[in-house]
Amino acid sequence: MRILVIGGDGYCGWATALHLSARGHDVTIVDNLIRRRWDAELGITSLTRIAPIESRLREWHERTSRTIAYLSRDVTVYEDVCRTLRETRPHAIVHFGQQRSAPYSMIDHDHALRTHLNNTVGNLNLLWALHEVAPEAHLVKLGTMGEYGTPNIDIEEGFITIEHKGRTDTLPFPKQPGSFYHLTKVSDSDQIYFACRTWQLRATDLNQGIVYGIETPETFLSAPLVNRFDYDGVYGTVLNRFCVQAALRHPLTVYGRGGQTRAFLDIRDTVACIELAILNPAEPGEYRVFNQFTEVFGVLALARRVEAVARELGIKAPVLYYDNPRAEKDEHYYQTVNTRLMDLGLTPRHLDDALIAQLIEVGIRNVERIDPAHVLPKVKWRGAEPAAAAERAG
Amino acid sequence: MRILVIGGDGYCGWATALHLSARGHDVTIVDNLIRRRWDAELGITSLTRIAPIESRLREWHERTSRTIAYLSRDVTVYEDVCRTLRETRPHAIVHFGQQRSAPYSMIDHDHALRTHLNNTVGNLNLLWALHEVAPEAHLVKLGTMGEYGTPNIDIEEGFITIEHKGRTDTLPFPKQPGSFYHLTKVSDSDQIYFACRTWQLRATDLNQGIVYGIETPETFLSAPLVNRFDYDGVYGTVLNRFCVQAALRHPLTVYGRGGQTRAFLDIRDTVACIELAILNPAEPGEYRVFNQFTEVFGVLALARRVEAVARELGIKAPVLYYDNPRAEKDEHYYQTVNTRLMDLGLTPRHLDDALIAQLIEVGIRNVERIDPAHVLPKVKWRGAEPAAAAERAG
Repeated sequence: MRILVIGGDGYCGWATALHLSARGHDVTIVDNLIRRRWDAELGITSLTRIAPIESRLREWHERTSRTIAYLSRDVTVYEDVCRTLRETRPHAIVHFGQQRSAPYSMIDHDHALRTHLNNTVGNLNLLWALHEVAPEAHLVKLGTMGEYGTPNIDIEEGFITIEHKGRTDTLPFPKQPGSFYHLTKVSDSDQIYFACRTWQLRATDLNQGIVYGIETPETFLSAPLVNRFDYDGVYGTVLNRFCVQAALRHPLTVYGRGGQTRAFLDIRDTVACIELAILNPAEPGEYRVFNQFTEVFGVLALARRVEAVARELGIKAPVLYYDNPRAEKDEHYYQTVNTRLMDLGLTPRHLDDALIAQLIEVGIRNVERIDPAHVLPKVKWRGAEPAAAAERAG
Repeated sequence: MRILVIGGDGYCGWATALHLSARGHDVTIVDNLIRRRWDAELGITSLTRIAPIESRLREWHERTSRTIAYLSRDVTVYEDVCRTLRETRPHAIVHFGQQRSAPYSMIDHDHALRTHLNNTVGNLNLLWALHEVAPEAHLVKLGTMGEYGTPNIDIEEGFITIEHKGRTDTLPFPKQPGSFYHLTKVSDSDQIYFACRTWQLRATDLNQGIVYGIETPETFLSAPLVNRFDYDGVYGTVLNRFCVQAALRHPLTVYGRGGQTRAFLDIRDTVACIELAILNPAEPGEYRVFNQFTEVFGVLALARRVEAVARELGIKAPVLYYDNPRAEKDEHYYQTVNTRLMDLGLTPRHLDDALIAQLIEVGIRNVERIDPAHVLPKVKWRGAEPAAAAERAG
């Protein structure tokens, strides 16, 4: 199949583009490389050394004889999107081309607005371009489990059947997004659902959990193919961040009391899920939502697990309770459904200690690339700098 | 109280600004007059002759000795918003400064994007500016009943208590917006709710029904104070539009079979509701939603009623079923709660035949200002021109 991977230079996008190419699909990456500029602006770098996109793609071709095309285009420019669809006539479009960090969107007004413009204008453009240029193409859009927030009822996959005053309807699951980034994802979902109802577009909205790991079999082939490993307070996600802290022999910073429960998955499952969605497309007019994760962990439990694996490696990395820079519930109910991707054939991987040890070892190998100034969170949801580290856990 | 009325040159905004000024409040209108430019672009005009904003305000001062200040500023420019809040230090901000037409937002990609940018960027700017400059001010934001769509359960006021798999939570009412305009309003609501939870802002979100009528006691004082009367297919709302069609001896164009049921209110109730919200502000951190309407009508029933009043005036204006240019359910359940504004003291007006007759007469008096080319809808939700008139009802 002809597949566009928008945002294919990023963490999930790169792994997905290679995976789909390895599986025989005809892949084109569309990316304006803005994430590389954001890195430069924030003064952060991936722990792993990321080659220029052209080198990455040349290396992929040399290793596999397969070709991934690359278009330097911006989804926020409507004519770019239309032209891309006209030129590439894709069967499926995987849309990762968004600013994906909640802390980034909370830095200040300017970063909230940039996130909003990049994400919601890009999404709106893509929907209109599909309507006008490629109404048959299947949109596979990355959402996030964070759209739901932490309701006190079970989270379903996108929709919920509500009985109310003696009547019943199946309606979009109520969302409680927790940052300007999450707000854009909810807005995207609403737009896509509308476009499917109104224009008979076909779309799969993948509400993804927190992704961990770095390598897939394809990115592991050679050094220039390596994937990003973000460990900083803006782009680093929780498990990867703990592993780098352990590598640094830094305490593992748990926000609040660590009672937050979140959905997780291995990046190798991310790429598998996306291929499953593409191979089993939505029908015309269908807007479907899959909750894309494999396991649920409490943040403190995860830290304890990293602490234990580190200890095996001879590293002391105790848990440190840290004033929560976010506005989120510390203790809450969390139960969520994720059967639709399993029904399509996903065999979930489970987080094992070997992977945690590997991630710590990647940290150790690259320890000279870690900037300790970026290990702690700097962005506070309620403004100003977060309070200094609070209290060390036993 | 010091009150900002953003969008105070528009239909609801103008009536509200005068009403609040008449009631002794210290009112500042903020408006970039973009609606006047949109009128020019679309080649449409209000049926009533709208004076320049400066003349309107001069006339108001001459008639009442009261002064309404005016600032020509753009809510999509963040520094404009911050400066305005710093300079005026409002107790309450009524935000009408949005593109308010669903058909306008569906003309094409460009109009969808303009609507999105004007509305959601303005809303995001206002929230950040409140957070940074005026966290104590009470935001009174206009939403729309259209955010809810037409679910098969009763519509509550913003939130619904859901029992699911043995657990219970009160969550945002699921929304099914029916145009890019409506999508912006849903996105605004999500942003405001987030800002109240996270920054302890205080906000009232008024999900307004379809407003009818033109005059309030204040706009009626003299000709330069008259309010807008939009009759065209883009900005004209259903009852006002039927009355102008009757004045023109044009058939009353009912979309589809006219089975759509909608919530309505008189513009005199709009201004009363807004004052009630201001006088009874939300608490810090509180996000509350009021459904702002007084009656529910079926569209066909409304057309029949206008037809009957017109007949009394010696006018034959039969109902004409017209291919629905929108994507909406023609027959549906519609039951919705609106007790919160009543609890604050609203005494609802009911639509009476005298008002319908008055609206038809305004149409007749201004018949030379009606452009018949704009009486029928031109914007079709699914693209291209709507089909010609279908079939005349008996």
